[in-house]
Amino acid sequence: MKPVTADRISLNTATVKAQWGLAECIEGAARHGFGGISPWRDVLAEMGTTAAARAIRDAGLAVSGLCRGGWYTAEGALTQAVMDDNRRAVDEAAELGAACLVMVVGGLSEGSKDLPAARAIVAEGLARTLEHARGAGVPIAIEPLHPMYAADRACVNTTAQALDLCDALGEGIGLALDAYHVWWDPELAAQIARAGRERLLAFHVCDWLVPTRDLLTDRGMMGDGVVDLKGFRGMVEAQGFEGLVEVEIFSARDWWARDADEVLATVAARCLEHC
Amino acid sequence: MKPVTADRISLNTATVKAQWGLAECIEGAARHGFGGISPWRDVLAEMGTTAAARAIRDAGLAVSGLCRGGWYTAEGALTQAVMDDNRRAVDEAAELGAACLVMVVGGLSEGSKDLPAARAIVAEGLARTLEHARGAGVPIAIEPLHPMYAADRACVNTTAQALDLCDALGEGIGLALDAYHVWWDPELAAQIARAGRERLLAFHVCDWLVPTRDLLTDRGMMGDGVVDLKGFRGMVEAQGFEGLVEVEIFSARDWWARDADEVLATVAARCLEHC
Repeated sequence: MKPVTADRISLNTATVKAQWGLAECIEGAARHGFGGISPWRDVLAEMGTTAAARAIRDAGLAVSGLCRGGWYTAEGALTQAVMDDNRRAVDEAAELGAACLVMVVGGLSEGSKDLPAARAIVAEGLARTLEHARGAGVPIAIEPLHPMYAADRACVNTTAQALDLCDALGEGIGLALDAYHVWWDPELAAQIARAGRERLLAFHVCDWLVPTRDLLTDRGMMGDGVVDLKGFRGMVEAQGFEGLVEVEIFSARDWWARDADEVLATVAARCLEHC
Repeated sequence: MKPVTADRISLNTATVKAQWGLAECIEGAARHGFGGISPWRDVLAEMGTTAAARAIRDAGLAVSGLCRGGWYTAEGALTQAVMDDNRRAVDEAAELGAACLVMVVGGLSEGSKDLPAARAIVAEGLARTLEHARGAGVPIAIEPLHPMYAADRACVNTTAQALDLCDALGEGIGLALDAYHVWWDPELAAQIARAGRERLLAFHVCDWLVPTRDLLTDRGMMGDGVVDLKGFRGMVEAQGFEGLVEVEIFSARDWWARDADEVLATVAARCLEHC
Protein backbone atom coordinates (compact mmCIF):
# COMPACT_ATOMS: atom_id res chain seq x y z
CA MET A 1 0.00 0.00 0.00
CA LYS A 2 1.06 3.57 -0.63
CA PRO A 3 1.74 5.45 2.62
CA VAL A 4 -0.85 7.98 3.76
CA THR A 5 1.05 11.17 3.12
CA ALA A 6 -0.56 14.50 4.03
CA ASP A 7 -1.91 15.03 0.52
CA ARG A 8 -4.01 11.89 1.00
CA ILE A 9 -5.64 13.12 4.22
CA SER A 10 -8.93 14.95 4.53
CA LEU A 11 -9.65 16.99 7.65
CA ASN A 12 -13.10 16.44 9.06
CA THR A 13 -13.87 19.73 10.76
CA ALA A 14 -15.19 17.99 13.89
CA THR A 15 -11.60 17.03 14.69
CA VAL A 16 -10.86 20.63 15.65
CA LYS A 17 -14.41 21.82 16.26
CA ALA A 18 -13.55 23.35 19.62
CA GLN A 19 -10.70 25.38 18.14
CA TRP A 20 -11.49 26.39 14.56
CA GLY A 21 -14.33 27.55 12.36
CA LEU A 22 -14.49 26.50 8.75
CA ALA A 23 -12.29 29.29 7.36
CA GLU A 24 -9.51 28.34 9.78
CA CYS A 25 -9.98 24.66 8.95
CA ILE A 26 -9.58 25.39 5.25
CA GLU A 27 -6.46 27.48 5.82
CA GLY A 28 -5.08 24.96 8.31
CA ALA A 29 -5.68 21.95 6.10
CA ALA A 30 -3.95 23.71 3.22
CA ARG A 31 -1.08 24.87 5.43
CA HIS A 32 -0.44 21.30 6.56
CA GLY A 33 -0.54 20.03 2.99
CA PHE A 34 -3.72 18.02 3.39
CA GLY A 35 -5.55 16.90 0.28
CA GLY A 36 -9.05 17.67 1.40
CA ILE A 37 -11.59 18.72 3.93
CA SER A 38 -14.95 17.46 5.12
CA PRO A 39 -17.10 20.16 6.67
CA TRP A 40 -19.94 19.73 9.08
CA ARG A 41 -23.04 21.65 8.18
CA ASP A 42 -23.01 23.84 11.29
CA VAL A 43 -19.67 25.40 10.42
CA LEU A 44 -20.65 25.47 6.76
CA ALA A 45 -23.76 27.47 7.62
CA GLU A 46 -21.69 29.96 9.64
CA MET A 47 -19.39 30.63 6.70
CA GLY A 48 -22.00 30.31 3.98
CA THR A 49 -21.90 27.58 1.36
CA THR A 50 -20.92 29.76 -1.58
CA ALA A 51 -18.07 31.44 0.28
CA ALA A 52 -16.92 28.10 1.63
CA ALA A 53 -16.98 26.44 -1.78
CA ARG A 54 -14.85 29.25 -3.18
CA ALA A 55 -12.36 29.20 -0.29
CA ILE A 56 -12.00 25.43 -0.48
CA ARG A 57 -11.47 25.57 -4.22
CA ASP A 58 -8.96 28.41 -3.89
CA ALA A 59 -7.08 26.43 -1.26
CA GLY A 60 -6.78 23.50 -3.66
CA LEU A 61 -8.65 21.14 -1.35
CA ALA A 62 -11.01 18.36 -2.34
CA VAL A 63 -14.21 17.80 -0.35
CA SER A 64 -14.29 14.17 0.77
CA GLY A 65 -17.81 14.52 2.10
CA LEU A 66 -20.37 16.78 3.69
CA CYS A 67 -21.42 15.87 7.24
CA ARG A 68 -24.30 15.30 7.43
CA GLY A 69 -27.79 14.61 6.23
CA GLY A 70 -30.21 12.11 7.70
CA TRP A 71 -31.95 12.29 11.11
CA TYR A 72 -35.06 11.00 9.41
CA THR A 73 -36.58 9.88 12.71
CA ALA A 74 -36.13 13.20 14.47
CA GLU A 75 -39.81 14.10 14.30
CA GLY A 76 -41.27 10.60 14.42
CA ALA A 77 -42.22 10.73 10.74
CA LEU A 78 -40.89 12.07 7.45
CA THR A 79 -42.15 15.60 7.92
CA GLN A 80 -41.68 18.33 5.36
CA ALA A 81 -39.08 19.92 7.64
CA VAL A 82 -37.03 16.72 7.76
CA MET A 83 -37.20 16.17 4.02
CA ASP A 84 -36.48 19.82 3.25
CA ASP A 85 -33.42 19.77 5.44
CA ASN A 86 -32.10 16.76 3.58
CA ARG A 87 -32.84 18.45 0.28
CA ARG A 88 -30.79 21.44 1.39
CA ALA A 89 -27.98 19.14 2.49
CA VAL A 90 -27.89 17.62 -0.99
CA ASP A 91 -27.80 21.07 -2.57
CA GLU A 92 -24.98 22.17 -0.28
CA ALA A 93 -23.01 19.02 -1.11
CA ALA A 94 -23.53 19.73 -4.80
CA GLU A 95 -22.33 23.31 -4.47
CA LEU A 96 -19.24 22.15 -2.59
CA GLY A 97 -18.54 19.44 -5.14
CA ALA A 98 -18.45 16.98 -2.25
CA ALA A 99 -17.55 13.38 -3.01
CA CYS A 100 -20.67 12.39 -1.06
CA LEU A 101 -23.28 13.50 1.43
CA VAL A 102 -22.77 11.50 4.61
CA MET A 103 -25.96 10.27 6.22
CA VAL A 104 -26.38 9.83 9.96
CA VAL A 105 -29.82 8.40 9.67
CA GLY A 106 -31.31 8.98 13.13
CA GLY A 107 -32.16 6.68 16.01
CA LEU A 108 -35.39 5.86 17.78
CA SER A 109 -38.04 8.51 17.58
CA GLU A 110 -38.85 10.27 20.87
CA GLY A 111 -40.65 7.90 23.21
CA SER A 112 -40.42 4.95 20.85
CA LYS A 113 -38.92 1.52 21.50
CA ASP A 114 -39.62 0.31 17.98
CA LEU A 115 -36.35 -0.10 16.13
CA PRO A 116 -37.89 -1.82 13.10
CA ALA A 117 -40.25 1.15 12.73
CA ALA A 118 -37.33 3.59 12.93
CA ARG A 119 -35.52 1.58 10.30
CA ALA A 120 -38.54 1.68 8.01
CA ILE A 121 -38.72 5.48 8.31
CA VAL A 122 -35.04 5.70 7.46
CA ALA A 123 -35.37 3.49 4.39
CA GLU A 124 -38.21 5.59 3.06
CA GLY A 125 -36.44 8.85 3.86
CA LEU A 126 -33.27 7.74 2.09
CA ALA A 127 -35.30 6.69 -0.95
CA ARG A 128 -36.87 10.12 -1.19
CA THR A 129 -33.64 12.04 -0.68
CA LEU A 130 -31.92 9.81 -3.20
CA GLU A 131 -34.26 10.92 -5.97
CA HIS A 132 -33.18 14.50 -5.49
CA ALA A 133 -29.53 13.56 -4.98
CA ARG A 134 -29.39 11.67 -8.26
CA GLY A 135 -30.64 14.72 -10.07
CA ALA A 136 -28.05 16.85 -8.31
CA GLY A 137 -25.28 14.36 -9.00
CA VAL A 138 -24.52 13.88 -5.29
CA PRO A 139 -23.69 10.36 -4.10
CA ILE A 140 -25.42 9.48 -0.84
CA ALA A 141 -23.20 7.73 1.73
CA ILE A 142 -24.94 5.86 4.53
CA GLU A 143 -22.71 5.83 7.60
CA PRO A 144 -23.41 2.80 9.74
CA LEU A 145 -22.91 4.00 13.30
CA HIS A 146 -21.60 1.94 16.19
CA PRO A 147 -24.41 -0.03 17.87
CA MET A 148 -23.98 2.09 21.01
CA TYR A 149 -25.66 4.90 19.02
CA ALA A 150 -28.65 2.84 17.87
CA ALA A 151 -31.02 4.59 20.25
CA ASP A 152 -30.07 8.21 19.85
CA ARG A 153 -28.14 8.75 16.61
CA ALA A 154 -28.47 6.07 13.96
CA CYS A 155 -30.41 2.85 13.71
CA VAL A 156 -28.22 1.65 10.84
CA ASN A 157 -25.50 -0.13 12.78
CA THR A 158 -23.68 -2.59 10.57
CA THR A 159 -22.11 -2.55 7.15
CA ALA A 160 -24.34 -5.42 6.08
CA GLN A 161 -27.44 -3.51 7.09
CA ALA A 162 -26.30 -0.43 5.17
CA LEU A 163 -25.54 -2.52 2.11
CA ASP A 164 -28.96 -4.15 2.29
CA LEU A 165 -30.39 -0.63 2.10
CA CYS A 166 -28.14 0.18 -0.86
CA ASP A 167 -29.25 -2.98 -2.62
CA ALA A 168 -32.87 -2.01 -2.09
CA LEU A 169 -32.35 1.58 -3.21
CA GLY A 170 -30.22 1.10 -6.31
CA GLU A 171 -27.79 3.51 -7.95
CA GLY A 172 -26.29 6.59 -6.36
CA ILE A 173 -26.02 5.35 -2.80
CA GLY A 174 -23.20 3.69 -0.91
CA LEU A 175 -21.26 3.70 2.35
CA ALA A 176 -19.23 6.04 4.50
CA LEU A 177 -17.17 3.56 6.50
CA ASP A 178 -15.71 4.89 9.73
CA ALA A 179 -13.26 2.61 11.46
CA TYR A 180 -14.57 3.70 14.84
CA HIS A 181 -18.05 2.47 14.08
CA VAL A 182 -17.38 -0.80 12.29
CA TRP A 183 -13.97 -2.12 13.37
CA TRP A 184 -15.49 -4.70 15.73
CA ASP A 185 -17.74 -6.35 13.12
CA PRO A 186 -16.95 -10.03 12.51
CA GLU A 187 -18.39 -9.62 9.01
CA LEU A 188 -16.33 -6.55 8.18
CA ALA A 189 -14.00 -8.11 5.61
CA ALA A 190 -16.81 -9.93 3.85
CA GLN A 191 -19.04 -6.86 3.77
CA ILE A 192 -16.30 -4.56 2.44
CA ALA A 193 -15.76 -7.07 -0.35
CA ARG A 194 -19.50 -7.14 -0.93
CA ALA A 195 -19.58 -3.34 -1.13
CA GLY A 196 -16.95 -3.15 -3.83
CA ARG A 197 -15.51 0.00 -5.28
CA GLU A 198 -18.81 1.47 -6.38
CA ARG A 199 -20.38 1.48 -2.91
CA LEU A 200 -17.29 2.66 -1.00
CA LEU A 201 -17.74 6.41 -0.97
CA ALA A 202 -15.88 7.56 2.12
CA PHE A 203 -13.35 6.15 4.55
CA HIS A 204 -12.99 7.69 8.02
CA VAL A 205 -10.39 6.99 10.66
CA CYS A 206 -9.71 7.61 14.33
CA ASP A 207 -9.08 4.99 17.00
CA TRP A 208 -10.91 3.07 19.72
CA LEU A 209 -9.43 3.82 23.13
CA VAL A 210 -9.26 1.31 25.98
CA PRO A 211 -10.79 2.36 28.23
CA THR A 212 -13.31 4.57 26.43
CA ARG A 213 -14.61 7.05 29.01
CA ASP A 214 -17.47 8.62 27.11
CA LEU A 215 -19.75 7.19 24.46
CA LEU A 216 -19.56 10.22 22.20
CA THR A 217 -16.48 12.36 22.77
CA ASP A 218 -13.66 10.01 23.69
CA ARG A 219 -12.38 8.87 20.31
CA GLY A 220 -8.66 8.37 19.95
CA MET A 221 -5.93 9.65 17.68
CA MET A 222 -4.79 6.99 15.25
CA GLY A 223 -2.28 4.74 16.99
CA ASP A 224 -3.54 5.43 20.51
CA GLY A 225 -6.15 2.67 20.40
CA VAL A 226 -6.71 -0.88 19.28
CA VAL A 227 -8.02 -0.62 15.72
CA ASP A 228 -5.96 -2.25 12.99
CA LEU A 229 -6.20 0.79 10.72
CA LYS A 230 -3.67 -0.44 8.17
CA GLY A 231 -5.60 -3.66 7.85
CA PHE A 232 -8.84 -1.72 7.46
CA ARG A 233 -7.42 0.55 4.76
CA GLY A 234 -6.01 -2.49 3.02
CA MET A 235 -9.46 -4.04 2.78
CA VAL A 236 -11.02 -0.84 1.47
CA GLU A 237 -8.28 -0.12 -1.06
CA ALA A 238 -8.25 -3.74 -2.23
CA GLN A 239 -11.71 -2.98 -3.60
CA GLY A 240 -10.30 -0.05 -5.57
CA PHE A 241 -11.18 2.79 -3.23
CA GLU A 242 -8.95 5.75 -4.11
CA GLY A 243 -10.51 8.48 -2.01
CA LEU A 244 -8.92 10.45 0.78
CA VAL A 245 -8.40 9.16 4.30
CA GLU A 246 -10.74 11.34 6.32
CA VAL A 247 -9.77 11.97 9.92
CA GLU A 248 -12.69 12.55 12.29
CA ILE A 249 -11.87 12.59 16.00
CA PHE A 250 -14.34 13.63 18.72
CA SER A 251 -12.13 14.12 21.74
CA ALA A 252 -13.37 16.44 24.46
CA ARG A 253 -10.75 15.51 27.02
CA ASP A 254 -7.71 15.49 24.75
CA TRP A 255 -7.50 16.72 21.15
CA TRP A 256 -10.20 19.39 21.40
CA ALA A 257 -8.18 20.86 24.25
CA ARG A 258 -4.96 21.21 22.25
CA ASP A 259 -3.60 23.73 19.79
CA ALA A 260 -5.21 22.95 16.43
CA ASP A 261 -1.95 23.11 14.49
CA GLU A 262 -0.50 20.54 16.90
CA VAL A 263 -3.55 18.36 16.21
CA LEU A 264 -3.10 18.57 12.43
CA ALA A 265 0.63 17.88 12.66
CA THR A 266 -0.12 14.85 14.84
CA VAL A 267 -2.80 13.67 12.40
CA ALA A 268 -0.28 13.80 9.56
CA ALA A 269 2.38 11.92 11.51
CA ARG A 270 -0.04 9.29 12.79
CA CYS A 271 -1.61 8.67 9.38
CA LEU A 272 1.84 7.99 8.01
CA GLU A 273 2.68 5.59 10.81
CA HIS A 274 -0.61 3.90 11.65
CA CYS A 275 -3.03 4.12 8.71
CA MET B 1 -47.43 -14.39 26.94
CA LYS B 2 -47.58 -15.23 30.60
CA PRO B 3 -46.66 -12.28 32.82
CA VAL B 4 -43.23 -12.34 34.46
CA THR B 5 -44.27 -12.91 38.05
CA ALA B 6 -41.59 -13.02 40.74
CA ASP B 7 -41.31 -16.80 40.59
CA ARG B 8 -40.15 -16.46 36.98
CA ILE B 9 -37.30 -14.06 37.84
CA SER B 10 -33.71 -14.98 38.55
CA LEU B 11 -31.49 -12.56 40.45
CA ASN B 12 -28.08 -12.11 38.92
CA THR B 13 -25.91 -11.24 41.90
CA ALA B 14 -24.22 -8.38 40.03
CA THR B 15 -27.49 -6.45 40.32
CA VAL B 16 -26.83 -5.92 44.03
CA LYS B 17 -23.09 -6.53 44.06
CA ALA B 18 -22.39 -3.34 45.98
CA GLN B 19 -24.86 -4.26 48.72
CA TRP B 20 -24.98 -8.01 49.20
CA GLY B 21 -22.79 -11.07 49.29
CA LEU B 22 -24.08 -14.39 47.99
CA ALA B 23 -25.72 -15.52 51.24
CA GLU B 24 -27.74 -12.30 51.37
CA CYS B 25 -28.62 -12.63 47.70
CA ILE B 26 -29.95 -16.14 48.28
CA GLU B 27 -32.01 -15.05 51.27
CA GLY B 28 -33.16 -11.90 49.47
CA ALA B 29 -34.18 -13.68 46.29
CA ALA B 30 -36.15 -16.20 48.34
CA ARG B 31 -37.72 -13.47 50.49
CA HIS B 32 -38.96 -11.67 47.37
CA GLY B 33 -40.36 -14.88 45.94
CA PHE B 34 -37.92 -15.08 43.03
CA GLY B 35 -37.56 -18.36 41.20
CA GLY B 36 -33.81 -18.41 40.91
CA ILE B 37 -30.41 -16.90 41.23
CA SER B 38 -27.35 -16.53 39.05
CA PRO B 39 -24.16 -16.09 41.02
CA TRP B 40 -20.93 -14.53 39.86
CA ARG B 41 -17.87 -16.57 40.65
CA ASP B 42 -16.30 -13.96 42.92
CA VAL B 43 -19.17 -14.08 45.41
CA LEU B 44 -19.41 -17.83 44.93
CA ALA B 45 -15.76 -18.22 45.90
CA GLU B 46 -16.30 -16.13 49.03
CA MET B 47 -19.12 -18.37 50.21
CA GLY B 48 -17.70 -21.63 48.92
CA THR B 49 -19.39 -23.64 46.19
CA THR B 50 -20.60 -26.49 48.40
CA ALA B 51 -22.11 -24.19 51.01
CA ALA B 52 -23.70 -22.05 48.27
CA ALA B 53 -25.17 -25.06 46.49
CA ARG B 54 -26.76 -26.21 49.73
CA ALA B 55 -28.11 -22.77 50.65
CA ILE B 56 -29.56 -22.25 47.18
CA ARG B 57 -31.19 -25.67 47.24
CA ASP B 58 -32.54 -25.10 50.74
CA ALA B 59 -33.99 -21.76 49.63
CA GLY B 60 -35.82 -23.47 46.81
CA LEU B 61 -34.07 -21.44 44.13
CA ALA B 62 -33.03 -22.61 40.69
CA VAL B 63 -29.66 -21.53 39.27
CA SER B 64 -30.26 -19.93 35.88
CA GLY B 65 -26.56 -19.71 35.18
CA LEU B 66 -23.10 -19.29 36.60
CA CYS B 67 -21.28 -16.10 35.61
CA ARG B 68 -18.76 -16.62 34.20
CA GLY B 69 -16.17 -18.64 32.36
CA GLY B 70 -14.23 -17.55 29.34
CA TRP B 71 -11.54 -14.82 29.16
CA TYR B 72 -9.61 -17.10 26.83
CA THR B 73 -7.51 -14.24 25.49
CA ALA B 74 -6.43 -12.97 28.90
CA GLU B 75 -2.89 -14.30 28.58
CA GLY B 76 -2.53 -14.05 24.81
CA ALA B 77 -2.80 -17.82 24.41
CA LEU B 78 -4.67 -20.77 25.90
CA THR B 79 -2.37 -21.23 28.86
CA GLN B 80 -2.83 -23.96 31.42
CA ALA B 81 -4.02 -21.33 33.89
CA VAL B 82 -6.74 -20.13 31.54
CA MET B 83 -7.92 -23.63 30.72
CA ASP B 84 -7.80 -24.73 34.36
CA ASP B 85 -9.89 -21.78 35.41
CA ASN B 86 -12.53 -22.70 32.86
CA ARG B 87 -12.40 -26.30 34.03
CA ARG B 88 -13.06 -25.14 37.57
CA ALA B 89 -15.92 -22.95 36.35
CA VAL B 90 -17.53 -25.98 34.73
CA ASP B 91 -17.14 -27.99 37.91
CA GLU B 92 -18.65 -25.21 39.99
CA ALA B 93 -21.59 -24.93 37.59
CA ALA B 94 -22.09 -28.69 37.86
CA GLU B 95 -22.05 -28.62 41.66
CA LEU B 96 -24.59 -25.77 41.65
CA GLY B 97 -26.80 -27.55 39.15
CA ALA B 98 -26.66 -24.41 37.02
CA ALA B 99 -28.72 -24.31 33.85
CA CYS B 100 -25.56 -23.18 32.06
CA LEU B 101 -22.10 -21.74 32.43
CA VAL B 102 -22.13 -18.26 30.90
CA MET B 103 -19.06 -17.45 28.83
CA VAL B 104 -17.64 -13.96 28.51
CA VAL B 105 -15.01 -14.98 26.05
CA GLY B 106 -12.40 -12.22 26.36
CA GLY B 107 -11.37 -9.37 24.09
CA LEU B 108 -8.13 -8.46 22.39
CA SER B 109 -5.02 -9.81 24.06
CA GLU B 110 -2.75 -7.22 25.68
CA GLY B 111 -1.06 -5.13 23.01
CA SER B 112 -2.85 -6.83 20.13
CA LYS B 113 -4.97 -5.26 17.40
CA ASP B 114 -5.76 -8.59 15.82
CA LEU B 115 -9.45 -9.35 16.36
CA PRO B 116 -9.50 -12.38 14.04
CA ALA B 117 -6.63 -13.86 16.08
CA ALA B 118 -8.53 -13.25 19.33
CA ARG B 119 -11.58 -14.91 17.84
CA ALA B 120 -9.53 -17.94 16.83
CA ILE B 121 -8.20 -18.30 20.38
CA VAL B 122 -11.75 -18.11 21.71
CA ALA B 123 -13.05 -20.75 19.31
CA GLU B 124 -10.29 -23.16 20.32
CA GLY B 125 -10.73 -22.41 24.01
CA LEU B 126 -14.47 -23.01 23.86
CA ALA B 127 -13.89 -26.29 22.03
CA ARG B 128 -11.58 -27.53 24.77
CA THR B 129 -13.80 -26.42 27.63
CA LEU B 130 -16.78 -27.96 25.90
CA GLU B 131 -15.23 -31.41 26.04
CA HIS B 132 -15.04 -31.23 29.81
CA ALA B 133 -18.44 -29.58 30.10
CA ARG B 134 -20.13 -32.33 28.15
CA GLY B 135 -18.70 -34.89 30.54
CA ALA B 136 -19.92 -32.82 33.48
CA GLY B 137 -23.35 -32.30 31.96
CA VAL B 138 -22.99 -28.50 31.98
CA PRO B 139 -24.36 -26.58 28.99
CA ILE B 140 -22.01 -23.84 27.81
CA ALA B 141 -23.70 -20.52 27.02
CA ILE B 142 -21.78 -18.06 24.87
CA GLU B 143 -22.82 -14.53 25.75
CA PRO B 144 -22.38 -12.21 22.79
CA LEU B 145 -21.37 -8.89 24.31
CA HIS B 146 -22.22 -5.46 22.95
CA PRO B 147 -19.70 -4.35 20.32
CA MET B 148 -18.50 -1.59 22.64
CA TYR B 149 -16.82 -4.38 24.65
CA ALA B 150 -15.06 -5.99 21.68
CA ALA B 151 -11.65 -4.69 22.73
CA ASP B 152 -11.62 -5.36 26.43
CA ARG B 153 -14.24 -7.96 27.34
CA ALA B 154 -15.53 -10.16 24.57
CA CYS B 155 -14.76 -10.44 20.87
CA VAL B 156 -17.99 -12.36 20.26
CA ASN B 157 -20.34 -9.47 19.55
CA THR B 158 -23.39 -10.66 17.67
CA THR B 159 -25.89 -13.45 17.98
CA ALA B 160 -25.01 -14.64 14.48
CA GLN B 161 -21.34 -14.87 15.37
CA ALA B 162 -22.11 -16.84 18.54
CA LEU B 163 -24.35 -19.20 16.59
CA ASP B 164 -21.66 -19.72 13.98
CA LEU B 165 -19.45 -20.87 16.85
CA CYS B 166 -22.19 -23.15 18.15
CA ASP B 167 -22.62 -24.64 14.69
CA ALA B 168 -18.89 -25.32 14.48
CA LEU B 169 -18.71 -26.81 17.99
CA GLY B 170 -21.76 -29.05 18.02
CA GLU B 171 -23.79 -30.30 20.95
CA GLY B 172 -23.77 -28.86 24.44
CA ILE B 173 -23.25 -25.21 23.58
CA GLY B 174 -25.69 -22.37 23.03
CA LEU B 175 -26.40 -18.75 23.87
CA ALA B 176 -26.89 -16.50 26.84
CA LEU B 177 -28.83 -13.63 25.27
CA ASP B 178 -28.77 -10.38 27.20
CA ALA B 179 -31.08 -7.69 25.92
CA TYR B 180 -28.51 -5.03 26.77
CA HIS B 181 -25.95 -6.55 24.45
CA VAL B 182 -28.05 -7.53 21.46
CA TRP B 183 -31.15 -5.33 21.35
CA TRP B 184 -29.75 -3.12 18.57
CA ASP B 185 -29.02 -5.97 16.15
CA PRO B 186 -30.96 -5.73 12.87
CA GLU B 187 -30.65 -9.52 12.58
CA LEU B 188 -31.93 -10.21 16.08
CA ALA B 189 -35.28 -11.73 15.19
CA ALA B 190 -33.79 -13.90 12.46
CA GLN B 191 -30.95 -15.11 14.66
CA ILE B 192 -33.19 -15.95 17.62
CA ALA B 193 -35.27 -18.03 15.23
CA ARG B 194 -32.09 -19.65 13.95
CA ALA B 195 -31.00 -20.45 17.51
CA GLY B 196 -34.18 -22.28 18.35
CA ARG B 197 -35.05 -23.75 21.70
CA GLU B 198 -32.00 -25.96 21.98
CA ARG B 199 -29.48 -23.11 21.71
CA LEU B 200 -31.34 -20.61 23.91
CA LEU B 201 -29.87 -21.31 27.33
CA ALA B 202 -30.24 -18.05 29.20
CA PHE B 203 -32.18 -14.82 28.84
CA HIS B 204 -30.97 -11.67 30.62
CA VAL B 205 -32.69 -8.33 30.93
CA CYS B 206 -31.96 -4.77 31.99
CA ASP B 207 -32.42 -1.64 29.86
CA TRP B 208 -30.44 0.72 27.64
CA LEU B 209 -30.51 4.24 29.05
CA VAL B 210 -30.47 7.37 26.90
CA PRO B 211 -28.06 8.92 27.55
CA THR B 212 -25.73 6.15 28.73
CA ARG B 213 -23.03 7.82 30.81
CA ASP B 214 -20.60 4.97 31.28
CA LEU B 215 -19.79 2.06 29.03
CA LEU B 216 -19.82 -0.50 31.82
CA THR B 217 -21.82 0.57 34.85
CA ASP B 218 -24.76 2.60 33.58
CA ARG B 219 -27.31 -0.04 32.70
CA GLY B 220 -30.91 0.72 33.39
CA MET B 221 -33.75 -0.83 35.33
CA MET B 222 -36.32 -2.40 33.02
CA GLY B 223 -38.66 0.31 31.78
CA ASP B 224 -36.21 3.18 32.26
CA GLY B 225 -34.65 2.77 28.82
CA VAL B 226 -35.50 2.11 25.21
CA VAL B 227 -35.38 -1.67 24.83
CA ASP B 228 -38.57 -3.42 23.76
CA LEU B 229 -38.21 -6.10 26.41
CA LYS B 230 -41.65 -7.63 25.89
CA GLY B 231 -40.89 -7.95 22.20
CA PHE B 232 -37.57 -9.54 22.97
CA ARG B 233 -39.07 -12.06 25.41
CA GLY B 234 -41.75 -12.82 22.87
CA MET B 235 -39.14 -13.77 20.29
CA VAL B 236 -37.24 -15.96 22.75
CA GLU B 237 -40.31 -17.68 24.14
CA ALA B 238 -41.72 -18.22 20.65
CA GLN B 239 -38.81 -20.60 20.20
CA GLY B 240 -39.88 -22.55 23.27
CA PHE B 241 -37.55 -21.03 25.84
CA GLU B 242 -39.01 -21.72 29.28
CA GLY B 243 -36.17 -20.61 31.52
CA LEU B 244 -36.17 -17.83 34.06
CA VAL B 245 -35.90 -14.13 33.22
CA GLU B 246 -32.52 -13.23 34.67
CA VAL B 247 -32.08 -9.63 35.80
CA GLU B 248 -28.53 -8.32 35.58
CA ILE B 249 -28.07 -4.58 36.12
CA PHE B 250 -24.69 -2.87 36.49
CA SER B 251 -25.59 0.53 37.84
CA ALA B 252 -22.96 2.37 39.82
CA ARG B 253 -24.78 5.69 39.94
CA ASP B 254 -28.24 4.41 40.74
CA TRP B 255 -29.22 0.88 41.73
CA TRP B 256 -25.97 -0.08 43.41
CA ALA B 257 -26.45 2.94 45.64
CA ARG B 258 -29.91 1.90 46.87
CA ASP B 259 -31.21 -0.44 49.52
CA ALA B 260 -31.05 -3.93 48.06
CA ASP B 261 -34.57 -4.88 49.12
CA GLU B 262 -35.84 -1.79 47.31
CA VAL B 263 -33.92 -2.95 44.23
CA LEU B 264 -35.47 -6.43 44.34
CA ALA B 265 -38.96 -5.05 44.87
CA THR B 266 -38.45 -2.73 41.91
CA VAL B 267 -37.13 -5.59 39.80
CA ALA B 268 -40.27 -7.59 40.53
CA ALA B 269 -42.60 -4.70 39.72
CA ARG B 270 -40.75 -3.76 36.55
CA CYS B 271 -40.58 -7.33 35.24
CA LEU B 272 -44.32 -7.55 35.61
CA GLU B 273 -44.88 -4.28 33.78
CA HIS B 274 -42.12 -4.15 31.18
CA CYS B 275 -40.79 -7.66 30.43
